[in-house]
Amino acid sequence: MSATPAHQIEITGFDWVPDFAKGFVRDLRPRWACEEIGLPYSMRLLNAAAPRPDAYFREQPWGQVPTLADDGLNLFESGAILLHLGEKDERLLPRDPQARATAISWLFAAYNSVEPLIFEYSNIEIFAAGEQWAELRRPSLIEFAGRRLDRLAAAIDGRDWLAGRFSVADIAMATVLRNIEGSGLLEERPVLMAYLERAIARPAFKAALAAQLADFKPVPAAAA
Amino acid sequence: MSATPAHQIEITGFDWVPDFAKGFVRDLRPRWACEEIGLPYSMRLLNAAAPRPDAYFREQPWGQVPTLADDGLNLFESGAILLHLGEKDERLLPRDPQARATAISWLFAAYNSVEPLIFEYSNIEIFAAGEQWAELRRPSLIEFAGRRLDRLAAAIDGRDWLAGRFSVADIAMATVLRNIEGSGLLEERPVLMAYLERAIARPAFKAALAAQLADFKPVPAAAA
Repeated sequence: MSATPAHQIEITGFDWVPDFAKGFVRDLRPRWACEEIGLPYSMRLLNAAAPRPDAYFREQPWGQVPTLADDGLNLFESGAILLHLGEKDERLLPRDPQARATAISWLFAAYNSVEPLIFEYSNIEIFAAGEQWAELRRPSLIEFAGRRLDRLAAAIDGRDWLAGRFSVADIAMATVLRNIEGSGLLEERPVLMAYLERAIARPAFKAALAAQLADFKPVPAAAA
Repeated sequence: MSATPAHQIEITGFDWVPDFAKGFVRDLRPRWACEEIGLPYSMRLLNAAAPRPDAYFREQPWGQVPTLADDGLNLFESGAILLHLGEKDERLLPRDPQARATAISWLFAAYNSVEPLIFEYSNIEIFAAGEQWAELRRPSLIEFAGRRLDRLAAAIDGRDWLAGRFSVADIAMATVLRNIEGSGLLEERPVLMAYLERAIARPAFKAALAAQLADFKPVPAAAA
């Protein structure tokens, strides 16, 4: 009898970001996962121009996006959110025990063994660009990241997806690798370029990317 | 009728590491988890002085430790391993849905939002110590890491453990924070110091640490 609306997933994102970040904000990851399985979701867009409200830090300790609310359950960190969405559908997380264990291993690998290098690389190339330490650090970081990416390429060589079948691990890894497209680090490793191209050719990725881009205002709210 | 031995968890570690790494190798994390629930495990110690065998890279794409084998199931990345062990016992991962979601969110937070800063800090202080870029980078990294740790302290303030009750998230976060003990970054934040001290006072941590230390040979195999 009650008029309770149908339950829907809610994801947080930003209503504006600088151009270099457009299409790279991490709510792209849960959006992509939802698109893969046709799971409807709604966005709660935070005002990027205003200081983050204190209450939001109780939802997300760093004030970042995304968070996910699902029928009263609240999660933060996109890795935890991908795992949660993966549990909903075997197209995102295989049910075979070893394939599941492999997918979850690679999910953590994307977050802890590959993305930290990308964080440092992005810092050097974007946030600290032109600073002396960044220029001096670049060669050793490129070398270290290159060795790690060689290992990743060796692991992917001969298969389409990290856990055999497509999974949330690929959503994580592809969105991580996408941050260094054009740096040469991928282009020098054809296995990784082909893997990334395979991932971003998926209709669900394209839909998620278009949806994120469509949600940004042309100018920050405070300047409007 | 068969004489199949009782199933036992197997974890990989190293048979030797340099002094600065003793007690900090990441097999400490699954060892600690096993000790918390009294789960027997055996170690497969890799020869730290020899090149890692090619076959090991098929178990662990970066050639690192730990991996875990559990009744035919193979995992890598200590985060995935902690999650797997957590599923075995509610003392490691609460069964209440929100507490579980919170614990898994914090598990990823330790690996993706805190440890990357510690990687960079350890690089500056240990591996690249004395290099010009490391000296120049230190102030901005300390400032950025400090802001992140302020947020972590705010999140922990008023509770004993990240998800309310002790969980694998605390094993991850405490072993991450332990790497910066003595740097001032924790000492300036009494909430974090108290949290770390609470964690490492647990008998299971002490047992895991003693077990790791006991497994190291006095000198690398190749030099013996």
